[in-house]
Amino acid sequence: MDISIVGGTGAEGFGLALRLAKAGHHVTIGSRMAEKAAASVEEAKGILGEDAPVDGAVNAESVVGKPVVFVTVPFSGQAMIYDAIKDTLEEGTVVCDCTSPLMTAVGGRATHAIRPWHGSAAEFAKSLVPKHVRMVGAFHTISAEALRALDQPVDSDAFVMGDDAEAKTMVGSLIQDIPGMRWVDVGGLQMARIAETLTPLLISINIRYKLHESGFRIMGRDAWGAPGK
Amino acid sequence: MDISIVGGTGAEGFGLALRLAKAGHHVTIGSRMAEKAAASVEEAKGILGEDAPVDGAVNAESVVGKPVVFVTVPFSGQAMIYDAIKDTLEEGTVVCDCTSPLMTAVGGRATHAIRPWHGSAAEFAKSLVPKHVRMVGAFHTISAEALRALDQPVDSDAFVMGDDAEAKTMVGSLIQDIPGMRWVDVGGLQMARIAETLTPLLISINIRYKLHESGFRIMGRDAWGAPGK
Repeated sequence: MDISIVGGTGAEGFGLALRLAKAGHHVTIGSRMAEKAAASVEEAKGILGEDAPVDGAVNAESVVGKPVVFVTVPFSGQAMIYDAIKDTLEEGTVVCDCTSPLMTAVGGRATHAIRPWHGSAAEFAKSLVPKHVRMVGAFHTISAEALRALDQPVDSDAFVMGDDAEAKTMVGSLIQDIPGMRWVDVGGLQMARIAETLTPLLISINIRYKLHESGFRIMGRDAWGAPGK
Repeated sequence: MDISIVGGTGAEGFGLALRLAKAGHHVTIGSRMAEKAAASVEEAKGILGEDAPVDGAVNAESVVGKPVVFVTVPFSGQAMIYDAIKDTLEEGTVVCDCTSPLMTAVGGRATHAIRPWHGSAAEFAKSLVPKHVRMVGAFHTISAEALRALDQPVDSDAFVMGDDAEAKTMVGSLIQDIPGMRWVDVGGLQMARIAETLTPLLISINIRYKLHESGFRIMGRDAWGAPGK
């Protein structure tokens, strides 16, 4: 699949780019500056090999013609980034917002959540793009370090939320391509109000227990796949 | 340990009573009505045996002389229940609030959270009791069915929050006495603002995947015990 990762030069986005490219997807790393994107492409090829299916572009260009776009930026930059890509997002594009609204955006702590007016960062994102965009939220609880450690499976489930079932399944299938990961459909986009606050919970656990890669697994379920099966 | 479970005739409280009594703790099941408490005691003894360390009392009496009190009531009844026990809670009692503020309290859905003015039900609870009470929050993500299934371990971690480290450890040690469970210190009592909303997330997962006992495990951690060890 052709994928853009807007903000793909950051730790979370770059880790995701590596994992998806390693799984055989064509990944375009988006950045505000073409040079930064190019540097990350070089770094990715240094890790994955020169033939790795990775290229780079400025954010607005990176999303053109891509069925799935991940947006991995800090909450403080979210509005600006969506403003940059909203006119080049094509009809029906699936956008997976990975933003966690933390108090760090206003000088506070990473263990504290901040609530956007719209309820969640994902709902805020939805308000910033044309109606034809299919917004999904995911990856709030997946550690950048775990994504980056390519020699190890990611021992974590990804909570996926959105109002378009097909869009969720598309994102879910990409998640399943990452060794160790499973996706969990947790409901409509509003569930981002809950899922996004799991980031500060994990950060608090990481600090208290001196960890870097804590994550969640959902227990009590034998069969994993599409909901209801 | 001597334990009271206020609201111990409900599904969650009764399951917790069974688990803690089975672990050898003396459990007093509290209820608004003495007859209901007595009926639950009979039921518990029918399950655990006549010698099981379980008795019953009305809520206000149930907490007298107990170092740890669990409060397991629906959000809609929380204020009334704390009003009933606040005068009999003794100096330094550890109260573990298990309330999840759901929209069901006002006729809405169990998959939707409602935010109390105080930030969380646990912080609301703290405002309802004397200052000498040590408030802890826990058990928001532990299924009543899983607690009740005594022949199986509980495949779930319990998130524990509070501002008194010793009180958290006391609740944590009780959690560790339940086969399969581990406790995770997630920080101060304000973290209940996050942890309490995990209940509607699990309810949403249970509905979507036709489960009854979903729960969370924290991954990325080999050694479990006190924080920082």
